[in-house]
Amino acid sequence: MTNRKEASKAFLKLLQEQNFYKQNLQLLQWDSHTNIPSKGLQQRAEVIGYLSEKLHQSQTSEQMKYYIDTFMEGSEDELLQALAVECKTIYDKAKKIPSQLQKAYAMQISKAEGVWAIAKEQSDYALFKPSLQRMIQLTQEMADCLGDKNQRYDTLLQQWEPGMTTEKLDGMFPALRSSLIDLLGEIKKSKRVIDETVITQSFQIDQQQAFCLQLLSNIGFDHEAGRLDTSVHPFTFGIHPDDVRITTRYDEYDLRQSIFGVLHEGGHALYEQGFAKAIMNTPLAEVSSMGMHESQALLWESWIGRSKPFWSANMPMLKKYAPQSFQQLTAEQMYTSLHHVNPSLIRVDADEVTYSLHIMLRYEIEKLLLNDELTVDELPEVWNEKMEAYLGVTPLNDREGVLQDIHWASGYFGYFPTYTLGFMYAAQIFKTMEHEINATSLIETNQLTDIKDWLTTRMYKTGKRKEPLQLIQDLTNEALRPEYLIEYLTNKYKDIYQF
Amino acid sequence: MTNRKEASKAFLKLLQEQNFYKQNLQLLQWDSHTNIPSKGLQQRAEVIGYLSEKLHQSQTSEQMKYYIDTFMEGSEDELLQALAVECKTIYDKAKKIPSQLQKAYAMQISKAEGVWAIAKEQSDYALFKPSLQRMIQLTQEMADCLGDKNQRYDTLLQQWEPGMTTEKLDGMFPALRSSLIDLLGEIKKSKRVIDETVITQSFQIDQQQAFCLQLLSNIGFDHEAGRLDTSVHPFTFGIHPDDVRITTRYDEYDLRQSIFGVLHEGGHALYEQGFAKAIMNTPLAEVSSMGMHESQALLWESWIGRSKPFWSANMPMLKKYAPQSFQQLTAEQMYTSLHHVNPSLIRVDADEVTYSLHIMLRYEIEKLLLNDELTVDELPEVWNEKMEAYLGVTPLNDREGVLQDIHWASGYFGYFPTYTLGFMYAAQIFKTMEHEINATSLIETNQLTDIKDWLTTRMYKTGKRKEPLQLIQDLTNEALRPEYLIEYLTNKYKDIYQF
Repeated sequence: MTNRKEASKAFLKLLQEQNFYKQNLQLLQWDSHTNIPSKGLQQRAEVIGYLSEKLHQSQTSEQMKYYIDTFMEGSEDELLQALAVECKTIYDKAKKIPSQLQKAYAMQISKAEGVWAIAKEQSDYALFKPSLQRMIQLTQEMADCLGDKNQRYDTLLQQWEPGMTTEKLDGMFPALRSSLIDLLGEIKKSKRVIDETVITQSFQIDQQQAFCLQLLSNIGFDHEAGRLDTSVHPFTFGIHPDDVRITTRYDEYDLRQSIFGVLHEGGHALYEQGFAKAIMNTPLAEVSSMGMHESQALLWESWIGRSKPFWSANMPMLKKYAPQSFQQLTAEQMYTSLHHVNPSLIRVDADEVTYSLHIMLRYEIEKLLLNDELTVDELPEVWNEKMEAYLGVTPLNDREGVLQDIHWASGYFGYFPTYTLGFMYAAQIFKTMEHEINATSLIETNQLTDIKDWLTTRMYKTGKRKEPLQLIQDLTNEALRPEYLIEYLTNKYKDIYQF
Repeated sequence: MTNRKEASKAFLKLLQEQNFYKQNLQLLQWDSHTNIPSKGLQQRAEVIGYLSEKLHQSQTSEQMKYYIDTFMEGSEDELLQALAVECKTIYDKAKKIPSQLQKAYAMQISKAEGVWAIAKEQSDYALFKPSLQRMIQLTQEMADCLGDKNQRYDTLLQQWEPGMTTEKLDGMFPALRSSLIDLLGEIKKSKRVIDETVITQSFQIDQQQAFCLQLLSNIGFDHEAGRLDTSVHPFTFGIHPDDVRITTRYDEYDLRQSIFGVLHEGGHALYEQGFAKAIMNTPLAEVSSMGMHESQALLWESWIGRSKPFWSANMPMLKKYAPQSFQQLTAEQMYTSLHHVNPSLIRVDADEVTYSLHIMLRYEIEKLLLNDELTVDELPEVWNEKMEAYLGVTPLNDREGVLQDIHWASGYFGYFPTYTLGFMYAAQIFKTMEHEINATSLIETNQLTDIKDWLTTRMYKTGKRKEPLQLIQDLTNEALRPEYLIEYLTNKYKDIYQF
């Protein structure tokens, strides 16, 4: 018994050390995206490589194996057991992949990302094709090391979304897809013209910044445990729940860039600031899944930030911060202007109606690629066909088509579905919040920290202790269903586009 | 032979790993001073503690001992040998101090710094006295572990200034002290009134910043291998020669704060950016000593930045960046206004004539304290007597007297002399540059990168491969002498104060 107690102390100490490496890596990465002078990048890559290896060695050490075996089962301490399970997942994954394959994969990513950047720049898919072919092949090898050869895609998907399967996705996505296509059809038929010019007025950047900081305070972001910076692409780095750093970007004539960047990353940040003290400095102090992470970004950005009550509550504040503009703008106009739907070629520019159609297409295609049911030669044609079928637009070149995303070059196969899962989780969670705490009226009165507190208690503090499907079940008292997202989008856009 | 070759490769790899830890620690520290949100500080302290320990373990490992023994002597490779010598210094120091003493010392510093801050705030030396007493005692124990009990002060001094001794200081400081006291007497007698108001005009902070960035470019600071930020106290963190970060502070009505902050830290930075490629990522990629580090800060700040030719060359640029002010100001007026001498109570506010008198006093006192020739009870009286004798002013309270510096609370005994050594090195080096490359005329024509190049080739690239006394000998062809500093100050102030 004493031995067991000592072992548990040593186990927690080892996890804390691993956490120190992770905090370090996060800071190194954050700094690489914000502050580092250009010549420093080469050294930085080496330092990051070295620390990653140290972390990996610790995660796959004999010592770690011993703790996993000791605490995996029959532990009276539920936390220790959960930690052992999480450590086993990391351990097994690392042990199952031969180090030579791991190395070849890492090198191929680095190479493929380089080729992809050039190919995209030159809009030349042929240039990228051999790299993509090799990435698919290595990804297949990796997947086959980790799981059943017949469930390759599931294996990859579960790296980002534990517990999720192709079968489950295929039970939800088609209904969502056809609803979205129908909804888009109705919107296209609508004669309603949405005037976006009412919001593309000058808003001084330092004032935008002050406004964004205030918004962050309003949603309950803890400024003493985080910071806001500027970068080309908004991002979130959670170094530690006490140090979560986000960025946004500013455009004097487009406040949407900064405001929705801040609310999106702010949502990610609230999740990361909200982990319970009990799991801090352990591998359970992480988000449940990428889909769940995205759900919080979307919930705060769209369900809250793009809602009518939000702008009723915040219009006076906007007018105060932008005294030269927006003085005649009503909350209703603001709200409407934020919901212009326009099928575009580019995923990252998509609105909330068409976004998931971009995802479906990618999901369907990457599944075919990994199962050898589609070749890289056939890829652009299928891409373009699906774009036409789902969105009614066809790319004129590779840059706006198959080359637009870095994901496949980076080995992020199985990642795309998490975006749409994020939308679905957000819709279902918001529906529950509506029932339980009357979320809309809290938004109307700007009591947003009540919403944050509810989410923290019910979700954020749990960290990685629950898999996403369990988490959504516990949160909402039912399994994940696409209906809430369909309902949300249909009601919203019926109202706006008047059909 | 093959074994030796393999060993040398492994030795260099180990040093590189240690260097990765150092880079990490530097970034963590820099971030702690610039970006970290307040709640993040506690975790940060633990991460820093952990990494420091890992570094320490590596520096004192059996493996390291083996490499030291292998390469210390009879190595055909001069660099390997120099590395082994440097590693031995670190190794021996760590091994000689019992870990319990090391721990007690670290804890006492942390405690003493806390007490010091409160005592200073309340101007209450009695509060700090027991902590200081304990710090002295532990410092004595540390010194006695590291070196001869009869040369305690030398042991401490050499931590910051390798090769320097009390005997050498006592051969130089008295002459310097009496010359400075005489010089100060002449200045006090002078009827010349220096008008500082000519420079305390408004200078917009963003314009000051742009001006400072340009100054940094002019002295040869590599902006691709470093950055300038803002902080309350200016500082330099050399993460790597490719990533050297400095800060300054801004006061709209006092351009001296930013400009001389930037030139001072810029001098430190040029040294750190200048290490040779051959020693990068090794423990020799450090400055020769704290005195040498300070010499470069002072050389760029004072010998160059406060010189008449510098302001002749830069007055047009100043007028361009500050179009609302300074338009009537002449270089001569600027130069004069920068040389107001006024004996003050506070070291960090002191001018270049009185600065070293503050240092002498501290040097003399800390030597007595460590040799048990002065008690902490007697300290304030001696402090005040010496202030009166050297500077002609007497502190009215402890805050402006004996409590003003954090050094003793932080265990920095033996550090103070390095400031005055910095002045002496700078004077002697500048004199040589005057002979060899006609430095003054290079300043006049703003060809400052020629000065930087000379210093880089002759000094910076050497890093820690030469001890400071050897370095000054090789650089200037003679041993360190106080006469150059005396001559420099006397000539300058004779001219300004017209005596």
